[in-house]
Amino acid sequence: MSATDPAQTQLSTDQDQAPHQATRAHEGAPAPEDVPRPTADAGTDAPAEGSGHANIGVVGLAVMGSNLARNLASREGNTVAVLNRSRSKTDELVGAHPEAGFVPAFSYEDFAGSLQRPRTAIIMVKAGGATDAVIEELIRVFEPGDIIVDGGNALFTDTIRREKAVRETGINFVGMGVSGGEEGALNGPSLMPGGSDESWTTLGPILRSIAAVAEGEPCVTHVGHDGAGHFVKMVHNGIEYADMQLIAEAYDLIRRGTGKSPAEIADVFAEWNRGELESYLIEITAEVLRQVDAETGRPLVDVIVDQAGAKGTGAWTVQTALSLGVPVSGIAEATFARSLSSHPEQREVSRALPGPSAESAAQALQVDDVDAFIEKIRLALYASKIVAYSQGFDEIRAGAAEYGWHIDLGRIAAIWRGGCIIRAQFLNRITEAYAATPELPVLLTAPYFVDALTRAQAAWRDVVAISARAGIPAPAFSSSLAYYDGLRAERLPAALIQGQRDFFGAHTYKRIDKAGTFHTLWSGDRTEIEAEDTH
Amino acid sequence: MSATDPAQTQLSTDQDQAPHQATRAHEGAPAPEDVPRPTADAGTDAPAEGSGHANIGVVGLAVMGSNLARNLASREGNTVAVLNRSRSKTDELVGAHPEAGFVPAFSYEDFAGSLQRPRTAIIMVKAGGATDAVIEELIRVFEPGDIIVDGGNALFTDTIRREKAVRETGINFVGMGVSGGEEGALNGPSLMPGGSDESWTTLGPILRSIAAVAEGEPCVTHVGHDGAGHFVKMVHNGIEYADMQLIAEAYDLIRRGTGKSPAEIADVFAEWNRGELESYLIEITAEVLRQVDAETGRPLVDVIVDQAGAKGTGAWTVQTALSLGVPVSGIAEATFARSLSSHPEQREVSRALPGPSAESAAQALQVDDVDAFIEKIRLALYASKIVAYSQGFDEIRAGAAEYGWHIDLGRIAAIWRGGCIIRAQFLNRITEAYAATPELPVLLTAPYFVDALTRAQAAWRDVVAISARAGIPAPAFSSSLAYYDGLRAERLPAALIQGQRDFFGAHTYKRIDKAGTFHTLWSGDRTEIEAEDTH
Repeated sequence: MSATDPAQTQLSTDQDQAPHQATRAHEGAPAPEDVPRPTADAGTDAPAEGSGHANIGVVGLAVMGSNLARNLASREGNTVAVLNRSRSKTDELVGAHPEAGFVPAFSYEDFAGSLQRPRTAIIMVKAGGATDAVIEELIRVFEPGDIIVDGGNALFTDTIRREKAVRETGINFVGMGVSGGEEGALNGPSLMPGGSDESWTTLGPILRSIAAVAEGEPCVTHVGHDGAGHFVKMVHNGIEYADMQLIAEAYDLIRRGTGKSPAEIADVFAEWNRGELESYLIEITAEVLRQVDAETGRPLVDVIVDQAGAKGTGAWTVQTALSLGVPVSGIAEATFARSLSSHPEQREVSRALPGPSAESAAQALQVDDVDAFIEKIRLALYASKIVAYSQGFDEIRAGAAEYGWHIDLGRIAAIWRGGCIIRAQFLNRITEAYAATPELPVLLTAPYFVDALTRAQAAWRDVVAISARAGIPAPAFSSSLAYYDGLRAERLPAALIQGQRDFFGAHTYKRIDKAGTFHTLWSGDRTEIEAEDTH
Repeated sequence: MSATDPAQTQLSTDQDQAPHQATRAHEGAPAPEDVPRPTADAGTDAPAEGSGHANIGVVGLAVMGSNLARNLASREGNTVAVLNRSRSKTDELVGAHPEAGFVPAFSYEDFAGSLQRPRTAIIMVKAGGATDAVIEELIRVFEPGDIIVDGGNALFTDTIRREKAVRETGINFVGMGVSGGEEGALNGPSLMPGGSDESWTTLGPILRSIAAVAEGEPCVTHVGHDGAGHFVKMVHNGIEYADMQLIAEAYDLIRRGTGKSPAEIADVFAEWNRGELESYLIEITAEVLRQVDAETGRPLVDVIVDQAGAKGTGAWTVQTALSLGVPVSGIAEATFARSLSSHPEQREVSRALPGPSAESAAQALQVDDVDAFIEKIRLALYASKIVAYSQGFDEIRAGAAEYGWHIDLGRIAAIWRGGCIIRAQFLNRITEAYAATPELPVLLTAPYFVDALTRAQAAWRDVVAISARAGIPAPAFSSSLAYYDGLRAERLPAALIQGQRDFFGAHTYKRIDKAGTFHTLWSGDRTEIEAEDTH
């Protein structure tokens, strides 16, 4: 078995590539292993005869593609055509799973010919140039009304571009977020398709059949047009970053604050998983912390190098939020915490920087009552998590407004309840909040969350204060609290910033007592004048 | 007088524009007021005769351009050609300043004809399409060896693109950061030119003559090739965001913690400005806080709407840092704090969110000794400021590595000592730090800063703890401290994150005790296998 993660190795960024048309995607793009090569008759532009009996096809048979194909094949009524650049992978998959009844294809023409109309193909290749290359081939052999689905982790702006280019051929293009990794792909992922209403009519029943099921509902919805699906998947990943960082900070505080072993802390997480924090990430945290390294007999977490990797979707989420003017500070701190950890040369020279004295740290921690301390951390984690999700949904709302998508935020929370990495009980509360108030301006002001925050806030404040005094970094906890206190502040010192900006740059300001835009003649007689509002 | 700020209104972003060649910049680009229109003979491609006697020209005569032109004209040896789209502005400038001896031009041909070779022109128009339009015109009338300087706030990637396109014509293109607003442009800005060594030979003496002077040295240096100048200017602005937010948090804490009036707090800042915090921003903060609104008799800061605007360079700095993998959490929090403040509808519904009880807040503040409390805040501000600058210089270092620029970090600090918004005594310490150790991996580990942080850290911790418990948002203070504690941590819980990532996505991990990349078979027998390193 290969230990690399196809769910993620397929999902690398093409963020830094210059936008380019799908129709010239081959230019300079390397042909990765999973991209089928054009066959000898690739030059003919005539579509292959659509006489096939497969109702869905998968292009790209690395682990994610193979698993999704197997998932599709296992559902009643589906016949699945499969295509891969290297024939060997196709043979391997088909040979290993005779029960699946796969229809193997060894050229795009075969592939198109094996599919019923409207032809529907899901691309599962590494995001970037490979995606464009496969799209180009499919356009060549597909016909108007057919459907191309990109199941990779594309940047949503690439998906918008591709959808526009493909639409001109009359073919439907659907960018679809797929969450849940290998296992999700096989047994039921959370699916976030964008694209046209027309394609959803065909795709909907197929996707519903393979998605994870949460409380009786398939974890899939038509998110919105063009790039909406990949946008929502991006924010899902951003929230995942925040969630993981918050858990990591909670673990660190318990460990350094109480001296409990990883195995003991595993018990704490297992216990938390029986309450309001119940979620996949809390569950697997207990599993990871309980794991003992066979070689050294030490807790595995102590043997793992403490440098967190990242595949870029956290950064995308923050970069996009900055463009949209949405503060997603929790996700940003989580992303930065990973990059900080991954600069060993900087950390090496910084270890000598002064921290609090042992006495001050001990005094800050004062953990006489271990259970009470742990409960405080649980509350801080819950409150910070509410902030992270609130910020993430805020970004989705702003993205929908910016790109003209009609996104049902409650439905998004609902389809994240199963299949995906951030699946959690908690998401039902978000669905309920948006059901009650669809236009909710800030998620954390929904009554359920206000109650939770009311219960949590004193503990949350204590935990941030303790971490600051004890010298234990808790960037996501403290950032979330600062966001919360900023949001509820009657007045913010942003007024001073406006004054400074007016002073050095004549940026003007608004007054609380009348309409208009004003400027003080700071280098003149310091009277105020009314200014043109150019801002 | 117009109260709008030309320094900044000219600097809006073209970040979201699709990259496009300078040579087709006119396509769809509106022709803003300051872009000279092609004259009747614009169709001729022959360069105008270079018989002129002006040694420098300025295109775009809004306030920034006019002031820069006047600055140039006031220096011995300079004769300045000026060009603007609308003739009236040119006439106005030339008429108002006969002492300047301007050479007015009313077409690009006239303009080129009035300049000595190599012709040198500084473009001062609104960043974006207008810049491309002017470049196109200048290319038409200039000759190989001539120099086009863009003094707007272009995104550095646009500058890289433009430099490449212009270079093909044999003309030099220099993207130059100009800091200091209107007044700086007139009396001495901090200048950050990029571009080729060849252009620096001609430009250097001219720019040195007009730049601000700090401790006898002109605030200008050849930053590096192509986009290096605009990159460094971008980070300058990002640091400025952090600096302003930290000052705002300090003000807010003093105000809410001690009940002092803005005028009294102005005295505090004036006092701080006599010590190690001495800087332009601290100085003008005192001025702003002392200002009384003539209409209401209230402190002006209480009359200004508390929603901070932003022009985008803070967001650029953070977005770029995310791409480079550099944690600039202080700048990010400052940027997010502005966007949070500017969502009144969200703040309105959030005012009812629970904060600490009055009793808890009072207990957290416990400001018996007001002077001691203020001193703590001063130290927290200083420590957080060191972090913000350290993060900013980290980004410059990473940018230089990524784009192949040779940037002398100590020189950057030196040219920021005068002319620009973040000018400060403190910058000498940065210059010294890099002079002593050019390859310093983290600025805050330089001995001077370690001393400062050692003095400050206990107070810094107190201030963050107090703000958390009192419910006063201090996102930049707390984020900076968390970064500091993260950097110096012996072990980070990033190891747990790697464990989680390996669990749900087979992302693999490294071990502390041997080389290689490993994966635990989490859904198998939980043994560890060695994995291909695909990361």
